Amino acid sequence: MQFYKDGFRGGSPDVRQAAPHRRNRGVNEPLPDAVDVLIAGTGPAGLCLAAQLAQFPDIETMIVERMPCNIVKGKADGINTRTMEMLQAFGIAEKVKRETCWVNQTAFWMPDPANPQHIRRVGRVQDVADDSSEMPHILINQARLHELFLEAMKNAPARLEPDYSWEVVGLTIDPATDDHPVTVTLKDASGVHWWATRTVRANYVVGCDGAHSAVRRAIGGELHGDAAHQAWGVMDILANTDFPDVRQKCLVSSASEGNVLILPREGGYLFRMYVELDKLRPDERAASRKFTQDDMIAAANRILRPYTIDVKEVVWWSIYDIGHAITDRFDDVPAGSDRNPRVFTAGDACHTHSPKAGQGMNVSMQDTFNLGWKLVHVLQGRADASLLGSYSRERLAEARRLVETDHQWSRIMSAPTTQAERDGLEEPRIIRQFKQNLAFTGGTAVQYGTSALVGPATHQALAQGLEIGRRFHSAPVVRLSDVQRMQLGHAAEADARWRLYAFAGRGDSGAPGSPLRRLADWLEQHPDSPVRRHTRPGEDIDAVIDVRAVFQQTFDQLAGEHMPSLLKPKTGRLGLQDHEKVFCVDHKGAGDIFDMRGIRRDSGCVVVVRPDQYVAHVLPLDAHAELSRFFAGVLR
Amino acid sequence: MQFYKDGFRGGSPDVRQAAPHRRNRGVNEPLPDAVDVLIAGTGPAGLCLAAQLAQFPDIETMIVERMPCNIVKGKADGINTRTMEMLQAFGIAEKVKRETCWVNQTAFWMPDPANPQHIRRVGRVQDVADDSSEMPHILINQARLHELFLEAMKNAPARLEPDYSWEVVGLTIDPATDDHPVTVTLKDASGVHWWATRTVRANYVVGCDGAHSAVRRAIGGELHGDAAHQAWGVMDILANTDFPDVRQKCLVSSASEGNVLILPREGGYLFRMYVELDKLRPDERAASRKFTQDDMIAAANRILRPYTIDVKEVVWWSIYDIGHAITDRFDDVPAGSDRNPRVFTAGDACHTHSPKAGQGMNVSMQDTFNLGWKLVHVLQGRADASLLGSYSRERLAEARRLVETDHQWSRIMSAPTTQAERDGLEEPRIIRQFKQNLAFTGGTAVQYGTSALVGPATHQALAQGLEIGRRFHSAPVVRLSDVQRMQLGHAAEADARWRLYAFAGRGDSGAPGSPLRRLADWLEQHPDSPVRRHTRPGEDIDAVIDVRAVFQQTFDQLAGEHMPSLLKPKTGRLGLQDHEKVFCVDHKGAGDIFDMRGIRRDSGCVVVVRPDQYVAHVLPLDAHAELSRFFAGVLR
Repeated sequence: MQFYKDGFRGGSPDVRQAAPHRRNRGVNEPLPDAVDVLIAGTGPAGLCLAAQLAQFPDIETMIVERMPCNIVKGKADGINTRTMEMLQAFGIAEKVKRETCWVNQTAFWMPDPANPQHIRRVGRVQDVADDSSEMPHILINQARLHELFLEAMKNAPARLEPDYSWEVVGLTIDPATDDHPVTVTLKDASGVHWWATRTVRANYVVGCDGAHSAVRRAIGGELHGDAAHQAWGVMDILANTDFPDVRQKCLVSSASEGNVLILPREGGYLFRMYVELDKLRPDERAASRKFTQDDMIAAANRILRPYTIDVKEVVWWSIYDIGHAITDRFDDVPAGSDRNPRVFTAGDACHTHSPKAGQGMNVSMQDTFNLGWKLVHVLQGRADASLLGSYSRERLAEARRLVETDHQWSRIMSAPTTQAERDGLEEPRIIRQFKQNLAFTGGTAVQYGTSALVGPATHQALAQGLEIGRRFHSAPVVRLSDVQRMQLGHAAEADARWRLYAFAGRGDSGAPGSPLRRLADWLEQHPDSPVRRHTRPGEDIDAVIDVRAVFQQTFDQLAGEHMPSLLKPKTGRLGLQDHEKVFCVDHKGAGDIFDMRGIRRDSGCVVVVRPDQYVAHVLPLDAHAELSRFFAGVLR
Repeated sequence: MQFYKDGFRGGSPDVRQAAPHRRNRGVNEPLPDAVDVLIAGTGPAGLCLAAQLAQFPDIETMIVERMPCNIVKGKADGINTRTMEMLQAFGIAEKVKRETCWVNQTAFWMPDPANPQHIRRVGRVQDVADDSSEMPHILINQARLHELFLEAMKNAPARLEPDYSWEVVGLTIDPATDDHPVTVTLKDASGVHWWATRTVRANYVVGCDGAHSAVRRAIGGELHGDAAHQAWGVMDILANTDFPDVRQKCLVSSASEGNVLILPREGGYLFRMYVELDKLRPDERAASRKFTQDDMIAAANRILRPYTIDVKEVVWWSIYDIGHAITDRFDDVPAGSDRNPRVFTAGDACHTHSPKAGQGMNVSMQDTFNLGWKLVHVLQGRADASLLGSYSRERLAEARRLVETDHQWSRIMSAPTTQAERDGLEEPRIIRQFKQNLAFTGGTAVQYGTSALVGPATHQALAQGLEIGRRFHSAPVVRLSDVQRMQLGHAAEADARWRLYAFAGRGDSGAPGSPLRRLADWLEQHPDSPVRRHTRPGEDIDAVIDVRAVFQQTFDQLAGEHMPSLLKPKTGRLGLQDHEKVFCVDHKGAGDIFDMRGIRRDSGCVVVVRPDQYVAHVLPLDAHAELSRFFAGVLR
């Protein structure tokens, strides 16, 4: 963590200096007339966006929520490794890791062939494959995740807080103006303002208002999908059981009583169960069957035989039917139009699916992490508004993949086992599919297609393990200045900046004339350099593009004093030297980043990483012109 | 982390359920008439004690501070590995690790023989030896450490906060009563109460009120010591420099300009320098020489030649002269008396020394971590009040060792280098001594002598790496229930409970008849078992002695369902099953705890660990009678 750059300031470093002239927030304060961004909904999608925008007090952000306060329990609970990597950039991953339950192994239980009325364990799979991510797969109360985002928002320079009890009920867009063209109608949903109606004008509106999204309806979006006609129950319980794997994620298939999914939760006692209830008729909804928590507990006890569950407290429960649905577009631009979007939807507002692959909350946050930096770039005038069109393109493709996989997975989970599986003659299909899905469910399989934001794979061979279009896969390094062992990926914060990692070729120590030095000097001095072109006068040299270097030597073979000046820039109010731009390989056995990520040792390379941690390009160290061109296609 | 044991409760798990009927605290609230423990001073010693006592709302604790609020900057900054291990038990080590500067390497600089007016690096030492601790050596603003303790106090069931502006000015002890025999006189030190005087009666008083301690004076304690007649300056600065090791701990000796100690600090920019100023005359104090921050900056620039420092902001500075001093006893019991103590001193109130070995703050906190659980035991009626006499015995011996080492080290740091050292013909004495001191400065060398609290070394051979009297040296394990990889030492919290780690012999899987099972069943059922004897009716079975087991197998070779019932007790309001008592060896290459700590594989053993994390005893698994005897010597 870097702080005190503008002078010493006591207290928690997570509490950033507040920007002056902030709007007062609170139930008794007036709503603003106009804002830059209005976010509808304080679920994971909305809060992830708000936490990012709150870092920029020059952007006036408002986030409204129809409920009078944060939720306390229930809803989603899975955070995959990819989302954890993102939370690291928000500074909250350590807290999440400490207080949550880690999914280390997933166990599979099936009918015992000797006694099919009883289940037995048939397999166990390491849930996060070695070096698939430096982060764990964790389970957390969704309400608690909200709190951590709310804290991050409140601690940010904008000191952002939700305006509770206000619900978006409609909006109109005036195509004739660029001055806050969206007029949003808000209605007091809790009665504290006597069900008043207010309007707020906004430059951009993001609907994170769930499956019944008013924002989606206002822009003519419709959810298309199907239902599986299968009722499931979910409950968070404090219970005792003789079932031995209750602190592991378990998929349990009984011979004739249906299936159960067990998810151990934070705190060491609580766990969640998804319990298969009855098949529904084609015209029937789960709600109409009036299942109760007692039905669920009884079903779970039947499925888990010979084991039993003795429930001490039902913390939360719900009944739902599986379904998948998706909209045709995530913004307000009709097909065929080339105007720029003003209104977006994210999360459940534009794609819904069954909860059992643990994807919903993750994909929702990744939606707005994709959108956030683009809004910042456009609102700060760093990029043309056409950049915003890429949000729907990139995330719609991803959501379609999700719905498809989820569809397949839901059916596999509900399908009966074969005799060969039960007899142990073949690996159960559910285990095979689970293993195949790991990168997908971990969130690390996402790959954005080639575009202005994602370069062609021409030079992919220079860094085979850092695939263009996929998230930057972190690896261990050592920071030269203080010999700190760390993850390279953790150098990146959710600050809407681009990262440019220059991996030095063999023997290159940054000395004058070396390829790395030539790149650094060009980036610092040449008029065509993207660093110079896209950074404004008076801004820190790393305000838009943050250049870092990784060397093949260990710390004791390099000299910080001989590094190019771009790698030790003087920034901030006091012009203090930055000591955290130069890395070398780990010397204590954690692995060599060049080997781990397939980086060509002879030549090195440059890896361009987007503000949302996706690899935008891989280029040779001397591809100066291509580097200029790439950034010119994105930034002004 | 375990929580929800008494039912679901939302929000941060660090914020524990508040106990009812708490005293109101704040400047407008009346002071209490009587308390169990009155702590004078909110430095590291006082806060560490308060944070521990705050877990026990049945103990009425008051902590007073003469200043009107917490400090903001300055004072100590080093936290050694041993203290980090302790902070882990308070739940704040993760936060500290994240936001502080880690000391990874210590560099040594001396005059360059080719040009003695210039310095050059002569060596570098890994600051925390491999496997000396799982924790780093870190540097932090002392004020921030205070904040973290204050937060822990405030989040604890007692919701403890300091009573600011009140200074202890005197106390008397009435030997005729056991009902709050100490009468403490407090004076308003800031004038908010118009310099009023109040008295509070206490059962115990702990003076953590610094080198000029009024508590020490009131019990007739005197600091004896010597001065080194050498003025040093210390400054926390934001500065640019071409000195390459500014983000590492450095000991710099110049040929003729004196010495400098550099300590990089939190945030990536700030660093501390200790700068040698002039020798003082025998009768002279540093303060009388009127050194300024400019003198210090000028001296640092002379010493660091050819490098220079360009100071942008002096955050804090101070001038002091080295000295060491210690009192004869840390409590109010005169030599030769056998009565039990009522008043204690800790930290600077009973031992002072130079700051440059980074020991002061650490030893101060270890003082009160030693005292805390003893006060809890006695006040809760679990142990006889004679237990409290062990505080002064154990900590006085430790403080003497500290003052001696510090004395030696200060002189080495100020001593001129030899020609052979400068010429590189022999390793400089300062590097040799630094390496020798590492376990001492890390805080892990502390060893308490044999007593009722520390058993004899009769069976030490069963666990050679877990030395009786030294701190429990953690190692990696895997929790069986959820296959969580973790440090065994992190199972312990600062909750005044004893830990009993049963290491199973080869092949023992906890099955009926095995030595481990026999021990567990005896502990659970036998009338002589210390678990049964010292736990009260109605209390959780692990309320006083927390038994855990470690097996030689990996997780996939053990079955939780076959474990003895003592290792899966049902506790708390709801009687929920505990899943966190059974561990196995790491299966992913982190090391085998049996090898790492020299635990006899054929027989296993039992390791008894005190509430302050010190190994109290090592015994064979079947030494049931000795186990009973040991605990009977401590607990009622």
